[in-house]
Amino acid sequence: MVFKLYYWDGIPGRGEFVRLALEEAGADYVDVARQPGGTGAMLTLMKDARDAAAPFAPPFLVDGERLISHVANILFYLGPRLGLAPEDEGLRYVANGLQLTITDCVAEVHDTHHPIGVSLYYEEQKPEASKRAANFLSERLPKYLGYFERVLTQNPKGPAHSVGGQMSYVDLSLFQVVEGLRYAFPHAMRSNEEQVPALVALHDAVAARPRILSYLGSDRRLPFNESCIFRRYPELDLPS
Amino acid sequence: MVFKLYYWDGIPGRGEFVRLALEEAGADYVDVARQPGGTGAMLTLMKDARDAAAPFAPPFLVDGERLISHVANILFYLGPRLGLAPEDEGLRYVANGLQLTITDCVAEVHDTHHPIGVSLYYEEQKPEASKRAANFLSERLPKYLGYFERVLTQNPKGPAHSVGGQMSYVDLSLFQVVEGLRYAFPHAMRSNEEQVPALVALHDAVAARPRILSYLGSDRRLPFNESCIFRRYPELDLPS
Repeated sequence: MVFKLYYWDGIPGRGEFVRLALEEAGADYVDVARQPGGTGAMLTLMKDARDAAAPFAPPFLVDGERLISHVANILFYLGPRLGLAPEDEGLRYVANGLQLTITDCVAEVHDTHHPIGVSLYYEEQKPEASKRAANFLSERLPKYLGYFERVLTQNPKGPAHSVGGQMSYVDLSLFQVVEGLRYAFPHAMRSNEEQVPALVALHDAVAARPRILSYLGSDRRLPFNESCIFRRYPELDLPS
Repeated sequence: MVFKLYYWDGIPGRGEFVRLALEEAGADYVDVARQPGGTGAMLTLMKDARDAAAPFAPPFLVDGERLISHVANILFYLGPRLGLAPEDEGLRYVANGLQLTITDCVAEVHDTHHPIGVSLYYEEQKPEASKRAANFLSERLPKYLGYFERVLTQNPKGPAHSVGGQMSYVDLSLFQVVEGLRYAFPHAMRSNEEQVPALVALHDAVAARPRILSYLGSDRRLPFNESCIFRRYPELDLPS
């Protein structure tokens, strides 16, 4: 069965957390909106007046008859099917809890440049973005990074993974969080990374995995840009 | 087995979505932080340096050896155990996707009074809150309500439930969303509710269920207040 991933073309965004899992597993998938006519097909599906599972927003995954929305939900579904979830049922809920903390972190990163409204341009909310980003960098960023570091160092199976003794989709998502934060806030990350060595080591280990390495060098990997969640606006970062 | 729910005392907040499921099922549970010494016990658990599943924030649920964090994750876990999830596995992912859309909606409601930072008082971010709330009420509120209405009316099993043909935790959460929005934005809700009759009918049906009715009249049900997610600041609502 070919998995169909639906997400906005042109940005890594929230879709990237799903792509990384599909790529690491070597899964057969189509990134629908990046095919000719794909964005139209995605919008049609979202407006389908008959579909009981119509999603609120991308990303969503279609697997045969099933349509599954929200990153954490997609990964909870895909994890066991791709060999990227813990075997133990209890640990699967731990993984899902961690993924939902990542979801919250990503939403807060988005709001550093969009604190007033998603429908407005960044340029329409710059003074507010400046305040929100300052608050995020001084309080929330160290809190999230410290929490993820703690999860790794408290893992009874060792700090190489976030849940259990094997690679999971949570590890892949943490890699992407570090990548995105380094893109958006290079100075702030430089002054925080020393405090989170296990998280940095996990990032580097994921980046070196053969399938991820090959994916990162391919044109399937979209570069970060200023239409994405992680945006580089130097005025929102710490001074160099 | 007695479920232990950990959440801040004094507010319904995010804990309420879990409480409603436990109450509807007549489950045996303890609302830990509302017991003597309970908040201290909760904070101790959150700081536990040995726990691999240490949560980022309340609410979390303890079921024997398991600690499960995040509302949607707790409900995904509890749903089948309380008879409040669809039997069909595919529909369980639909339910989880809906619950995650509710999670996003609740986070946006929170940010109407806290657009700059959770660590600041509302009084420190009033001008920004005014802008964010105006954007929320004009664009996001109708979008969320319309989406939930659509989910109900497109349910092949009929509009009385959000997923499948039976009451689920998603229905209970939608009740709470309507309750909270009516508390926070009474004028805005008055001008929106006519467009979402199925959602209002679902709210009323949940409120009339015997165990919910009894719960709502008990002192276990905490009133909304201005320390909660749903806050009544008349200056953020539409004019009457």
